[in-house]
Amino acid sequence: FFFSLRCKAEGGHAPSQRHVALLPPFPLRDFLCLRSQVPKMTTIYVFSNVVSGRGSVLNVKGDVEMDALVMDGKTLASGAVSAVRNIANPVQLARLVMDKTSHACLTAEGASKFARAVGIPEVSQESLITEYARMRWTKNLAPDANPVESQMGKMGTVGAVAVDREGNIACATSTGGMLNKMEGRVGDTPCIGSGGYADNQTGAVSTTGHGEAIMKVTLARLILFHMEQGQTVEAASDVGLAYMKSRVGGLGGVVTVDPQGGWGARFNSLQMAWAAAQDDRLHYGLYAGERFSESLQTP
Amino acid sequence: FFFSLRCKAEGGHAPSQRHVALLPPFPLRDFLCLRSQVPKMTTIYVFSNVVSGRGSVLNVKGDVEMDALVMDGKTLASGAVSAVRNIANPVQLARLVMDKTSHACLTAEGASKFARAVGIPEVSQESLITEYARMRWTKNLAPDANPVESQMGKMGTVGAVAVDREGNIACATSTGGMLNKMEGRVGDTPCIGSGGYADNQTGAVSTTGHGEAIMKVTLARLILFHMEQGQTVEAASDVGLAYMKSRVGGLGGVVTVDPQGGWGARFNSLQMAWAAAQDDRLHYGLYAGERFSESLQTP
Repeated sequence: FFFSLRCKAEGGHAPSQRHVALLPPFPLRDFLCLRSQVPKMTTIYVFSNVVSGRGSVLNVKGDVEMDALVMDGKTLASGAVSAVRNIANPVQLARLVMDKTSHACLTAEGASKFARAVGIPEVSQESLITEYARMRWTKNLAPDANPVESQMGKMGTVGAVAVDREGNIACATSTGGMLNKMEGRVGDTPCIGSGGYADNQTGAVSTTGHGEAIMKVTLARLILFHMEQGQTVEAASDVGLAYMKSRVGGLGGVVTVDPQGGWGARFNSLQMAWAAAQDDRLHYGLYAGERFSESLQTP
Repeated sequence: FFFSLRCKAEGGHAPSQRHVALLPPFPLRDFLCLRSQVPKMTTIYVFSNVVSGRGSVLNVKGDVEMDALVMDGKTLASGAVSAVRNIANPVQLARLVMDKTSHACLTAEGASKFARAVGIPEVSQESLITEYARMRWTKNLAPDANPVESQMGKMGTVGAVAVDREGNIACATSTGGMLNKMEGRVGDTPCIGSGGYADNQTGAVSTTGHGEAIMKVTLARLILFHMEQGQTVEAASDVGLAYMKSRVGGLGGVVTVDPQGGWGARFNSLQMAWAAAQDDRLHYGLYAGERFSESLQTP
């Protein structure tokens, strides 16, 4: 079931942030790959555009440190890594934490040691850093820079939620975090209930936005509580995002599914690149209110 | 307001696990200290017995790695550290993350660098390790050992929730984690919504138990959702713990307060050392159903 997320992560490319505006934000072949390998899958959502670690934002020292989370809604099992370095695909490593350890999160050097133990190759920092990421880092070193504001609407987070025809639900989120963050900063992404949550009984949410604000309201779990109380996917997502804005001034976005295949891609930031595949259609958008559709039949 | 937690943490002693049975589990002078310094505080709860880092359980390599979280219910601001080494008081460091950075969590070496930058002295691993902790570590290195079961009811976690007369609420949780955990393992404690949550509008919860199970159900936030829907502190705590047991087979305990000063110390593990101070009385217990009381008047 989780193959979908691995497939996406391994088969995806990593366009630069400037390519977000080129919709759809990731190749159609990824969806076709998903559908051919996971025939029971009806719905998959992905937002933002950094599929692998390459292209992540840099911390204040100019390094890439990544966070990731996966969760299986059937068992509530989850795996996460935080502040991990020199890994091309942190979601894959998070999945291995879930499958191969008795723990739910490994951090920093401990996560790297685990990666080596299970045979995940190390990659160089240079291989993860793009010119665009370095340009943004340099720009935000200026004394009057506002990295949080600079990042809004241009998140480096990728998230996915999925539900198959049997109602099995999962989520995955992966990020390089906030522009010019401190070394060792851990954001919402690997924090269960904030960066994502999946429960077959309710649905799944994957979040992006200002991590520190998302954590204050445990945004993913908050939205699912509203769904437990009878709200639709879209209404619950909007209520959760509106609460985050009014209570702590935070902006962000989410992709949400329910066990019946209802889905939403909602945000109160300037933009969020998103796409959803359901049955034979691909839907996608970037700015508020946008929703384009095209056939998913193999050309 | 948060002085209470610092005062507790700095003034507390660290009895060995074997002293848990000696009730009350921490000195009366700590409560008197709290009350004299924070005259508006009506209620403070603390469970378990490892107040500082000393006495923490050891990871599989025999080292102490600690997690901690603090949260301010007025602003929803929080601070956390995960897998931090060589620090005597991780709650104090978590508080500094909240106060002195724009982030909510720092991990591992990044947290250590921050500690050095703000002048927190490093301490040796040896100074944090007790004979009892080393004995348990050795015992659980055996191939047939079950560290999770071995730890139930003898948690190394300390948690506190507090509310003052103005309804300001806070929580703090600190732990060495699970016996013989992997290097870099991060449990529920620094994960907002799992190890603790505080919101002036609802209440606060601090949790202890099997961290991986607590995270599956985001226990602290779950209990507060039940309180938002009108349940009492005790009922909401019991419902949350019962759900964790039935859904994922997890055992643990919580201390919970509401803005009116209602409080509970609830657990489904074998035992949980707890105490609560309210007005002029100190209440405390260890096994289910126990509740002793004594005067808090200065002798």
